[in-house]
Amino acid sequence: MRERRYSSTSPEHLAAALFDVAAQAGLEGASVREVAKRAGVSIGAVQHHFSTKDEMFAFALRSLVDKLLARLAEVDQGGNPARGLFSALSQLLPLDETRSREAHVMAGFAVRAATSPSLAEIRRTTLFTIRTRLSAVLIGMGVHEAETRAALLLATVDGLALDAIGSPGLYPPEYLEHALDVQIAMVLHGAEVVPAPSSIELAS
Amino acid sequence: MRERRYSSTSPEHLAAALFDVAAQAGLEGASVREVAKRAGVSIGAVQHHFSTKDEMFAFALRSLVDKLLARLAEVDQGGNPARGLFSALSQLLPLDETRSREAHVMAGFAVRAATSPSLAEIRRTTLFTIRTRLSAVLIGMGVHEAETRAALLLATVDGLALDAIGSPGLYPPEYLEHALDVQIAMVLHGAEVVPAPSSIELAS
Repeated sequence: MRERRYSSTSPEHLAAALFDVAAQAGLEGASVREVAKRAGVSIGAVQHHFSTKDEMFAFALRSLVDKLLARLAEVDQGGNPARGLFSALSQLLPLDETRSREAHVMAGFAVRAATSPSLAEIRRTTLFTIRTRLSAVLIGMGVHEAETRAALLLATVDGLALDAIGSPGLYPPEYLEHALDVQIAMVLHGAEVVPAPSSIELAS
Repeated sequence: MRERRYSSTSPEHLAAALFDVAAQAGLEGASVREVAKRAGVSIGAVQHHFSTKDEMFAFALRSLVDKLLARLAEVDQGGNPARGLFSALSQLLPLDETRSREAHVMAGFAVRAATSPSLAEIRRTTLFTIRTRLSAVLIGMGVHEAETRAALLLATVDGLALDAIGSPGLYPPEYLEHALDVQIAMVLHGAEVVPAPSSIELAS
């Protein structure tokens, strides 16, 4: 009977349950007990897949990152590089219910990375990946100081998301979109040439 | 004897103990029990000052914010507005041990504001205060879209801090300083006139 319960769940299902708990109550509420309850399985079923809470958190963060990176890669760059950057980066802003939940949980993981080496490693790889992709886009557009400006684009989005999650009234969606537009315009200011669409490759 | 223990502590002492615990183990580690232990007082002594954990957190956040705002206000603006902005905003970046601890705890509070109305209210007031001060500086310099650019300056610093706390290797101090320099240069680009020092008033 216990075996049946083990086989009736999966790490992915548990990661989804952890995400739901954390989006509602913060990561501090995502105990093994609460995740099991939300997933509708026994505590043993969670422990069957994850021997520690840190392992469960690392799997959940990796799942969330994979989803976000896949969505970034899907963005249709179209012919306008500024719009391509906007579409990609706005995936990371709390512009609707889904992205607000994601931004909240992601910021929680970012803070927890300060005290968890396994989360820090995933976070480091993620930041490096996004910075590198953004940097490649900016280099392709002839933007000066592309690497630093790529890091600034990412920091702006992470910072706007962090500022917005507790103060949605100060940062309504249209305000966030406008702020991102202005930041992109500042970053692209002085770009030598608007390149052909084919040279914009955020998904590489 | 219990009375003596109550009188031997203060909310400020408990806030300092909470900060120490949180800087080391994250806010999730800052239980009433751990704060009492760090402060060297009984659990009852903590409960004497704070009837709930949320109340204790709100007091601690307010203490941290007051300290940071006081430090921002102290910044010597000198004659160079860009340097004045840099000096002020670099107070919020994890450039040394003290600021790294502050950035970690502050980001933790920012995330927790999503699930705590009392923390959200303090956070909202803080963001509004800093945005307004920065905005006044930019308006004084004739910067276009001053309010949005002020929010972007703050978001950049909050985002760089968030990205850096779990990935200090990707964001060493000199990198953070350079990024802040570039962001300020982008924000000030197109400012009409460099005004006289007297019109720069971040501390208002």
